[in-house]
Amino acid sequence: MKCCTSADHKLLDFVKVKGENTSFNRVLDQQIKCGFGQQGVCCRLCSNGPCRITPKSPQGVCGATADTIVGRNFLRSVASGAACYLHIVETTARNLKKTGEEKGVLKGVETLNELAKAFGVEEEDMHLKAEKVADLVLRDLYKPRFEKMELTEKIAYGPRVDKWKELGIMPGGAKSEVFDAIVKSSTNLNSDPVDMLMHSLNLGISTGLYGLTLTNLLNDVMLGEPVIRQAKVGFKVVDEDYINIMITGHQHSIIGHLQDYLISDEVKKSAQDVGAKGFKLVGCTCVGQDLQLRGEHYEEVFSGHAGNNFTSEPLISTGAIDLILSEFNCTLPGIEDLADKYQVKMICLDDVAKKKNSEYMEFSMEKRVEISKKIVEEALNNYGKRRSEIEINIPKDHGHDDVITGVSEKSLKKFLGDSYKPLLSLIASGQIKGVAAVVGCSNLTAKGHDVFTVELTRELIKRDIIVLSAGCSSGGLENVGLMSPKAADLAGDKLKEVCKSLGIPPVLNFGPCLAIGRLEIVATELARELGIDIPQLPLVLSAPQWLEEQALADGAFGLALGLPLHLAIPPFVTGSKVITKVLTEDLPSITGGQLILDDDVISTADRLEKIVMDRRMALGL
Amino acid sequence: MKCCTSADHKLLDFVKVKGENTSFNRVLDQQIKCGFGQQGVCCRLCSNGPCRITPKSPQGVCGATADTIVGRNFLRSVASGAACYLHIVETTARNLKKTGEEKGVLKGVETLNELAKAFGVEEEDMHLKAEKVADLVLRDLYKPRFEKMELTEKIAYGPRVDKWKELGIMPGGAKSEVFDAIVKSSTNLNSDPVDMLMHSLNLGISTGLYGLTLTNLLNDVMLGEPVIRQAKVGFKVVDEDYINIMITGHQHSIIGHLQDYLISDEVKKSAQDVGAKGFKLVGCTCVGQDLQLRGEHYEEVFSGHAGNNFTSEPLISTGAIDLILSEFNCTLPGIEDLADKYQVKMICLDDVAKKKNSEYMEFSMEKRVEISKKIVEEALNNYGKRRSEIEINIPKDHGHDDVITGVSEKSLKKFLGDSYKPLLSLIASGQIKGVAAVVGCSNLTAKGHDVFTVELTRELIKRDIIVLSAGCSSGGLENVGLMSPKAADLAGDKLKEVCKSLGIPPVLNFGPCLAIGRLEIVATELARELGIDIPQLPLVLSAPQWLEEQALADGAFGLALGLPLHLAIPPFVTGSKVITKVLTEDLPSITGGQLILDDDVISTADRLEKIVMDRRMALGL
Repeated sequence: MKCCTSADHKLLDFVKVKGENTSFNRVLDQQIKCGFGQQGVCCRLCSNGPCRITPKSPQGVCGATADTIVGRNFLRSVASGAACYLHIVETTARNLKKTGEEKGVLKGVETLNELAKAFGVEEEDMHLKAEKVADLVLRDLYKPRFEKMELTEKIAYGPRVDKWKELGIMPGGAKSEVFDAIVKSSTNLNSDPVDMLMHSLNLGISTGLYGLTLTNLLNDVMLGEPVIRQAKVGFKVVDEDYINIMITGHQHSIIGHLQDYLISDEVKKSAQDVGAKGFKLVGCTCVGQDLQLRGEHYEEVFSGHAGNNFTSEPLISTGAIDLILSEFNCTLPGIEDLADKYQVKMICLDDVAKKKNSEYMEFSMEKRVEISKKIVEEALNNYGKRRSEIEINIPKDHGHDDVITGVSEKSLKKFLGDSYKPLLSLIASGQIKGVAAVVGCSNLTAKGHDVFTVELTRELIKRDIIVLSAGCSSGGLENVGLMSPKAADLAGDKLKEVCKSLGIPPVLNFGPCLAIGRLEIVATELARELGIDIPQLPLVLSAPQWLEEQALADGAFGLALGLPLHLAIPPFVTGSKVITKVLTEDLPSITGGQLILDDDVISTADRLEKIVMDRRMALGL
Repeated sequence: MKCCTSADHKLLDFVKVKGENTSFNRVLDQQIKCGFGQQGVCCRLCSNGPCRITPKSPQGVCGATADTIVGRNFLRSVASGAACYLHIVETTARNLKKTGEEKGVLKGVETLNELAKAFGVEEEDMHLKAEKVADLVLRDLYKPRFEKMELTEKIAYGPRVDKWKELGIMPGGAKSEVFDAIVKSSTNLNSDPVDMLMHSLNLGISTGLYGLTLTNLLNDVMLGEPVIRQAKVGFKVVDEDYINIMITGHQHSIIGHLQDYLISDEVKKSAQDVGAKGFKLVGCTCVGQDLQLRGEHYEEVFSGHAGNNFTSEPLISTGAIDLILSEFNCTLPGIEDLADKYQVKMICLDDVAKKKNSEYMEFSMEKRVEISKKIVEEALNNYGKRRSEIEINIPKDHGHDDVITGVSEKSLKKFLGDSYKPLLSLIASGQIKGVAAVVGCSNLTAKGHDVFTVELTRELIKRDIIVLSAGCSSGGLENVGLMSPKAADLAGDKLKEVCKSLGIPPVLNFGPCLAIGRLEIVATELARELGIDIPQLPLVLSAPQWLEEQALADGAFGLALGLPLHLAIPPFVTGSKVITKVLTEDLPSITGGQLILDDDVISTADRLEKIVMDRRMALGL
């Protein structure tokens, strides 16, 4: 079967052997791209269209230029991506609030206390404290656009807040900011590309601080803080002796109850009654990565993380998955036909992610017990029905046993001796040249599945630049072994020495894309320790294989923070001179950030290294 | 100059004589359409794309089918359109609230009392009453999605509410419903076309009841209720002896203060000092239509309605416009270059509608005095600068003097003797065969500018079907004379007799697209009077020349109400068999509504007439 390539050769071998219809072959059928779409100069907002900008037709029917059309398309994409993350933090805050109200278990008391302190919440009772913290988040999300959110200043780095105020991009109520961005990007409304770009940065701030950072921390309160440990990854985590529930999505707190319920005596017994050893959750996409990150608390129920978004189709074709539980993206529509073929029951817990052939069970904390029971019932049923009919074929040689996981802003700091100073000393001495956050999604088009991500990471560590990863990128990097301690051998001599002495890999695994928010905390802590602003740090950002609109909203946060951001595939903006120029040339003098578009690995590494070296020099290192 | 055609021949002559670059010629340059875009089977949500569905590539890279791609594109469009209208009602409610707080003038006390009664507000003080009414609207808009809005049941027709509950489409907080629709239509989230269609209907309900109906009524409270009267329309309304401010947008209350301020002695004197007779507001797009509708209260300041969205470019090229004030769509980007050429100052009062070359002044009720002053200052300045340099050429033979305007659900009822019974009697007796609401936008692609709208309307009245219009469609219909009493001669014998005896035209002018909400009140009142549900009425809906996403949200309301809805140009959905089938075939048994796609005038009239006749028969008429 003809497929695109993958950095994960064993995965690709399996895909080819199975010969199922997956993204790996469909990408070849979609190879001929529409140039108008790629450049962002196609507009289909109204019935006079679709219009396309060409040299002979430089305006749409309404008069919109390439700049206006690209600006609208881009803003709408960023707003949609921001909406996705803000939906996640809203769900998370509601679940925390309910946990507080019901006097439920709070596994991350330290984080709760830190949040309460940062928010100015004075309350002794931990459950009331959780409620109040959650309420403040919800209150901010629901403010109108003309009221600034209160927590932004409390959790963002001071010099950045000053810059954002100067630029007029401090976000009002996050949901209303998204809402008005959608209005703004409608036909015959806003036509000003620069205004729309600034709005995108504003959305980046709420995405980063609320959608990412606060989601992580609120989840830590409910589900436990990450603890550094070794874990298994890849298809080898799948054990056919168990009833396997594959999870996909981004909202860890939605499966919080299920995690504990599946290992209750009652449920284990029900599994044994049908001939299985018990239940296992098999990690896929970001919620799998979140479970891996908090794996210390879920050793029994979590079999491990199988892989990122594009591994979900091959995973189903192992035949070992009995039920798929989804609650958000990146749940590929492609899994639907495979789920039917392999008789996998699909259940969806949030209607925003309703798959065509899934059963929808509306999740709420109030109904969690009932829902967990129903899921178990369906899984037991389906296990009984399908196991005699479906052949199981798990490539047990796929993956690694020794991935270092559980890395967070807090666990890393603890590991370093409760201070970032040791890391800064290593940077100052040149043992570590700088830091690169290689983050974001996985796609199939930047050289193939995870290919650019893996090649760039190898190139950076070779140059003694330590890599931190979060997102589907980390799913790819761990499955090719770059997050195992043995990968130290692939690093430059200096970084290798650091890794060997500490027993760490040169690529640190922060987990899901939500954890990009944790990386930004690390960046902030480093800047604070040095008394400088974030754009002065020898720290670069790359989302080489960004896939979705959410990644663009993340990227907008990076640019608002003042970080250089590399993408191997441009967002659909290159048809606008104004927008391309502002993003790639003017931004350094606006926020300090910069968009770097480069589809060559070596030249990207050169450019990122140069920025790191320039920053070192400016800091006198 | 080569141009598309227009139902408005004098306008077209002027466009050709002037030879400016306008939508009328650009539409010819954009004649080659992308078939993928037209059918809705192009997806550019992620970096693996853009993907296009063809027989050889029936899925996107992710596995999305045509049904999923069309469903996402359609839901996102409807959500964006809904967002636009909800932005408008939010602004309106905030302005009413502030008017109450400041003990400002309330010109529509009767409407306020009716709203308070419907909402269950018990309050004697009129200003407090206004505040409370506004607050209830805002509270609903800001509810989370899982809390149903309270006012929906209070303002919608009972049998419809029952139906919507049965279908599970009663809207939660309207802004959150839009927000989650944007999330839902993102990549790797929802893939279920039917779920997405039902969400579209849910958005239609909040669009119709809040975005349309409540906007009208809240504006009536602040700005005065419509009163039936005769008015001038077309370019003849423009008087070069005045300083002319062209207004475009949809948010009438934003210019509330300015309207009164421009005719204050102080401002009139300032105009006279620079050689003008005073200031005039020249109506364009829907806010012009709203001013025309409430023209009884603004005789001095309002020169009249010049025309719909596509007349705005020719209007600028008369040279007689000194300043453009915009606050929403449909403000074509095409006006920017013309404004520069004719030295017209552009000011924008709401950043969602910020035009590239406009000065942005953020409107708020608190700053209204300051803003009105600044606008006058800029207009005076610009008048002084430009009038000696720009030639003025107003086609004074364009338009009519005797358009019947000020028609609303309330003024019409009063006109009929405080009851809809006379209208029902005329329908029962067959003097009027039925009612057709020909509404929505103007586009250039359904046979040309307003061509389909005008031809269909002529055909319907010829068949004794009375036409009610709201939106840019009414701007077109009045400029070709169909809303003048003399148009009775174009109606069938029976309808002609009715018109002549009452002194009304066969086409009734409800004003802006917002007034589609008024038409739905009329429909509800007729159904209530007869004790039947809305889908039983001999009433049909056509938005033949829909243009924008807002029209799709309006259309979703019509379909949720159970009305047959005709469109001459399909929305971008025909690439999905499932979606096309549900909309055009299955909907009658779901909501009672039905989408009718027909690009031929006579066949459309035949189909609409047949529905009217079938309904009459079912009612025993």
